[in-house]
Amino acid sequence: MQLSRKADYALRAVAYVSHLKKNELGSIGRIAKARGIPREFLAKILKELTRAGILVSFQGVTGGYRLSRPAKEVSFLDVIEAMEGPVAVNLCVDGSHCGCTQEKGCEIRSFFVKQQDQITKALKRQTFANLNSGR
Amino acid sequence: MQLSRKADYALRAVAYVSHLKKNELGSIGRIAKARGIPREFLAKILKELTRAGILVSFQGVTGGYRLSRPAKEVSFLDVIEAMEGPVAVNLCVDGSHCGCTQEKGCEIRSFFVKQQDQITKALKRQTFANLNSGR
Repeated sequence: MQLSRKADYALRAVAYVSHLKKNELGSIGRIAKARGIPREFLAKILKELTRAGILVSFQGVTGGYRLSRPAKEVSFLDVIEAMEGPVAVNLCVDGSHCGCTQEKGCEIRSFFVKQQDQITKALKRQTFANLNSGR
Repeated sequence: MQLSRKADYALRAVAYVSHLKKNELGSIGRIAKARGIPREFLAKILKELTRAGILVSFQGVTGGYRLSRPAKEVSFLDVIEAMEGPVAVNLCVDGSHCGCTQEKGCEIRSFFVKQQDQITKALKRQTFANLNSGR
């Protein structure tokens, strides 16, 4: 019941980029060093964040990454889902069905549906504009 | 960010056992069938739940499992931790430290510390006595 290391690194990287000044770009080297992320892994993550439309990539020696939209429009949920797919705190709440015979009236599922709702809302509410400290 | 299948099965098994009448025992076969859990996997899980002091095992043809204590004293957290160890929603909140250079004043960690607190409290509050339906 733990966020993947990949998603954790993605949050750190986007947090770094969200603190950049206007027109400033974050290079892989700078982000890796500032946030303690292995460089190769970070390169892969940044590509995926770009593909997901969260970051924009600029090529060249002075290239790097910036957010594709205002930080207040990028939530923790956006970043986590770009890395892991839809958040589902238990197998039975993944949007399809639980795959067991107890789905209807299952007392365990109803608990996790509530938890799922709460964590999803919290992750959606938490944007990179309302982080509580700088880089 | 998902509960393991093993922990989910453990919750289902304990839920089944918690609905047994006094002096009634739940056999592996009955639990497996009633809760849709593969028998071999269930056997392993029941052993671990017994070792963790959540279930008591009775040997023999009429043997089986029952709770070691009243259902109101067995929480979802007890069962999940018996399967997965301490719950930590992100690497950085596992009780030691996050392993990165940003721990102090990290804006991501403070978010997950809050989530960790909420989910842990909810899992602790949810016991097998206050499940909202029968078996």
